[in-house]
Amino acid sequence: MSGVELVIAIDLGGTKLAAAVVDSGGRVLARNKRASARGGVGESAKQIAEAAGVALRDSGVEEIRGVGVIVPGIYRAETGMAWAPNLWGHEEVLLRDELERRLEWPVVIESDRAGYVTGERWLGAARGLDDVVFLAVGTGIGAGIVSGGKLIGGSGGVAGAAGWFALNRERRDIYAQIGCWEAEAAGPALARRSGYASGELAIEAARAGNAEALRAIGETACYMGMGIANIVSLLNPQMVVLGGGLMQAADLFLEPIRRAMLEWAQPVAARQVRIEKTELGEDAGLLGAARLALDNI
Amino acid sequence: MSGVELVIAIDLGGTKLAAAVVDSGGRVLARNKRASARGGVGESAKQIAEAAGVALRDSGVEEIRGVGVIVPGIYRAETGMAWAPNLWGHEEVLLRDELERRLEWPVVIESDRAGYVTGERWLGAARGLDDVVFLAVGTGIGAGIVSGGKLIGGSGGVAGAAGWFALNRERRDIYAQIGCWEAEAAGPALARRSGYASGELAIEAARAGNAEALRAIGETACYMGMGIANIVSLLNPQMVVLGGGLMQAADLFLEPIRRAMLEWAQPVAARQVRIEKTELGEDAGLLGAARLALDNI
Repeated sequence: MSGVELVIAIDLGGTKLAAAVVDSGGRVLARNKRASARGGVGESAKQIAEAAGVALRDSGVEEIRGVGVIVPGIYRAETGMAWAPNLWGHEEVLLRDELERRLEWPVVIESDRAGYVTGERWLGAARGLDDVVFLAVGTGIGAGIVSGGKLIGGSGGVAGAAGWFALNRERRDIYAQIGCWEAEAAGPALARRSGYASGELAIEAARAGNAEALRAIGETACYMGMGIANIVSLLNPQMVVLGGGLMQAADLFLEPIRRAMLEWAQPVAARQVRIEKTELGEDAGLLGAARLALDNI
Repeated sequence: MSGVELVIAIDLGGTKLAAAVVDSGGRVLARNKRASARGGVGESAKQIAEAAGVALRDSGVEEIRGVGVIVPGIYRAETGMAWAPNLWGHEEVLLRDELERRLEWPVVIESDRAGYVTGERWLGAARGLDDVVFLAVGTGIGAGIVSGGKLIGGSGGVAGAAGWFALNRERRDIYAQIGCWEAEAAGPALARRSGYASGELAIEAARAGNAEALRAIGETACYMGMGIANIVSLLNPQMVVLGGGLMQAADLFLEPIRRAMLEWAQPVAARQVRIEKTELGEDAGLLGAARLALDNI
C-alpha cells in the first residue's frame, strides 16, 4: 500500500547474533539478540532462521522481501562460501546453501565490514557519501570500503584486510600471526603498551589520568593514524568512519589520530577527508545488512 | 566498413609527449614523440593538437572517433581541471576547455596512472583481469587502480597516491615533502642508499657485483614489498603490475619484492596475487589512453 519495503536483517557476529525487521525508511520494527551458536554452519543457519522467525513474529509484519545476512569474515558470492574462523574454523563453509535450506525468503550475504560501511552510508555518519571507508578497531582491525558508490570486495572477497598493513620496518614475530597494524593499533596493543590487562582497562586508567595509559593511547593513536593515512593516500575517500570496541573511547583517540593522519597522508587527500566516529555504533552492521537486502533482492 | 574503430592517443608526460593513432585491435598506425612544451596549459594544448595532427597525417587515416589524453598528475572529470605540477605548477588548470578549443574531436582525459593500468589490462600483463593495480616506480611512486573492473579515482581524483604510504614508524624530514614510501623505495632512495649518483648507476653497479649496490637494492626492494603488501591487503587484487624507470631492472627487484610482500600482506590475499613486470613498458600509457577513448567516446 504505502511503498514501504520490509526485510529481515541478521548480524551474525563471532559472539552474538542480532536479528531485526527493518523497513526501507530505516525503522527497526522488532529486534532480538542472542549468543552465537557453536557447532558448525548448519547450527548457525538454524539459529538464523529461528532469530528471523522471532523478529518477524514480534514485528507483526506479514510479508518481507528477503533477508540480509552479514558474517564476521569473508563471503564470496560466486561460490556461496563463507570463511569466518571465529565461528566455523579455518575451512570455508557453504553458507548460502545452508541458509537457503532454512529460510523461506531470498537471502543476500556479505561480510560484516561491507555491512558496517553500508549502514553508515545509509543512516549514519557517512549519509549520502560515495567514497567511504569504515574502519572497525576492536580486538582486530578491518575495513569496509566503498569507492565511487560501489563496495570493494577484491578478487577473492578479502579486500579490507587493513590489519595487515606494514607500518614498521622493524618486524616483530606477532606480525606474522595477525598483521603489523593490528599488532600495533588494536585493543591488545593498547593493553600491552599500558601494562593493563585489556584495552578497556587502559582506557579507564587514561580517563583517570594515569600517565602510562595516556602515553599508550598516544602511541596507539599514532599507529592508527599511520594506517588511516595509508587508506587516505590510496583511496582518497571523503570520510573514514571509525567503529569497533576501541572507538567507544573515540574522544581520546580522534584528535591524535587526525594529527597523525595529516602528518603522513598525501596532503590533498588528507585535507579532503573527514575522520568521524560511527553514528550507528553496534547497529551499523544490522542496518547495513537491511540495506544490502533492500538493494539486492 | 570493417568495424575497426580509430582514435588518437596522447601520453603527455612531465618531459615527453607521445602521440599515436591506434585502432580498436590495439594496432599503432602511426606515432610521434617530442619534448613536452613549457609555458602553461595553453602551450600544452597547442602541442597536443599539433602532435595529433602529425600522427593522423602519418597514419593515412581520415576519420577518428576521438582523442584520449593522459596527464602526469590528477584530472577531475567533474570540473575539467588538471593538476600536474611538473608541467603547470601547483595550481589546477582548465585542461578540458583548452583541449576542446584546439581539437576538432571529442576528448577523454585521465591521469597517467589510470592510463597505465588500462593499457596493461587491455594488451599487457593484466589482460582480461578486473582487479589490478599498476605501480609506477621511477623518480616517484604512483598507483593506477582497477577494482571490480572499474577505475578507482577517489573523491577528488587523488586515489593512487601510494608514494605517501607510511611504512616506517621513525619519521624522517623528507617524508613531509614526497611521502614515506617514495622516500624509501623510489629511484633517489636507491641512489642514496648505494652511494651512487642515480638509481640507474646503482643498478649498473649491482649488475657488476658491487656489494653496496646489491645491499641497497635489497633494502629498497624490502620497502617496495612492504608498500605492495599494503595494496594487496587492502584491495585483494589479482595482479600488481610493476612499471616505471626502476622496473627496467625488474630482474633484480622482482624476487625480493615478492618475498617481502608474502611476509607482510594478509596471507590469503598474498597467495592470490601475482606481481609481474609491465609488458607494455613505455607504451602502457599511450595504449591506455587509446582504450580510454575507445571506451568513453
